[in-house]
Amino acid sequence: MNSKHLSKGARQLSPVRKGKIRLYTNRFCPYCQRVVLILDAKNIPYEIVNINLLNKPDWMYDKSPMGKIPAIEMDNGEVLYESLIIADYLDEKYPQRQLHPKDPLQKAKDQLLLRQFTKVINALLKSIHVGRVDNDEAEVITEGLTTFENELANRSGPFFAGQKPGMLDYMIWPWCERSDVLKMFGRAYILKKDKYKKLMDWRKIMMEDETVKKSCCDVNTHIKYLQSHRAGLPDYDLLCFK
Amino acid sequence: MNSKHLSKGARQLSPVRKGKIRLYTNRFCPYCQRVVLILDAKNIPYEIVNINLLNKPDWMYDKSPMGKIPAIEMDNGEVLYESLIIADYLDEKYPQRQLHPKDPLQKAKDQLLLRQFTKVINALLKSIHVGRVDNDEAEVITEGLTTFENELANRSGPFFAGQKPGMLDYMIWPWCERSDVLKMFGRAYILKKDKYKKLMDWRKIMMEDETVKKSCCDVNTHIKYLQSHRAGLPDYDLLCFK
Repeated sequence: MNSKHLSKGARQLSPVRKGKIRLYTNRFCPYCQRVVLILDAKNIPYEIVNINLLNKPDWMYDKSPMGKIPAIEMDNGEVLYESLIIADYLDEKYPQRQLHPKDPLQKAKDQLLLRQFTKVINALLKSIHVGRVDNDEAEVITEGLTTFENELANRSGPFFAGQKPGMLDYMIWPWCERSDVLKMFGRAYILKKDKYKKLMDWRKIMMEDETVKKSCCDVNTHIKYLQSHRAGLPDYDLLCFK
Repeated sequence: MNSKHLSKGARQLSPVRKGKIRLYTNRFCPYCQRVVLILDAKNIPYEIVNINLLNKPDWMYDKSPMGKIPAIEMDNGEVLYESLIIADYLDEKYPQRQLHPKDPLQKAKDQLLLRQFTKVINALLKSIHVGRVDNDEAEVITEGLTTFENELANRSGPFFAGQKPGMLDYMIWPWCERSDVLKMFGRAYILKKDKYKKLMDWRKIMMEDETVKKSCCDVNTHIKYLQSHRAGLPDYDLLCFK
């Protein structure tokens, strides 16, 4: 998981071993973490190839359009990319511990929530990019979090999926893990924890989930990475054994 | 299908009848047509409520966020929106004539193609909005169509899904039905039919599909509607019996 990120000039990799999945990923990419969570939750055998996003190996461009990650490569050479499409594929292909709700209506409603969460992500990305949270973005974030807070209040819990985390829990997790980085922007941006009590409880028990633990990073590491990223020199290898 | 489009002030509708689905739609909305195609292909009993997009009935805002259409309402009052989420839901809930590929890998690959097609749609929308096809948009459209042309060449055909249209065929159809409206912008914008021979053959047999026939419109009607739309007074009721 914390292996060195490969760059342009890295030598060709050997074919994927029989029965394994190879994940092209990046230690600090939240979209990539989605796929890691699904692979871990379903206990699918996989190997990790970490990619330097600023200077990708040439062969990455043969795997996916513009060398996009996350991408998974199967032992027959087939490749898929786009985190949500990979997640759906893995959940269908590997029936152990089904993560999508079994009921089609509940599954569709969770998909709608995920669409709304995508808007929250985009507002967060924009805020991190400009270094402050503007009103429009604040509104999208507040509205999104309120929807999720109410949703948790209306479900039997403690997870969105019930007694164990499911697809929706894992698909939103990477950004929730990072939510405290907002304090980089000053005290005003720390989430009002009493306003999102249910979400805060959810976040706490997510942290204790065996699957989440495997890829989870503490907030200081996230902030350290983000600062290097904002300085134009992302330190992808922050967690490497040196 | 061609009933009058309801506007602000329209009276409340009665509850959805047992065993039926109510579709809130608009005769000229391609996203809505996606849902019509799935309902028709799977022979699901439904009723149509046409909505005036410029002046929606008040109760539409109680059904979906911002009164978004397409939306479907079930006989228990549950509502779903977003064309692709509705399509997935209907395909899972009603197992007759499964439209998604049975193989999870093929399904995932079709999803990737659909994402690329969304970029083509957005380029088309931008072009129609500004009244010309700029270079960036032309590139996205050409690249997208070439991908789909090659894809058809590599599949056993004649449809993307094989001997009968499947999910991918129907999800891209509404825009392909309208492709000839580009001639509004002059001869230069007519698609180079010899460059997309497979797609043109596909378009021709799609036109003969019983499901497509039910909601299909001729190009002149589409142009007439689009002209009214561009003039700021969309004539949604163009096909109404008056």
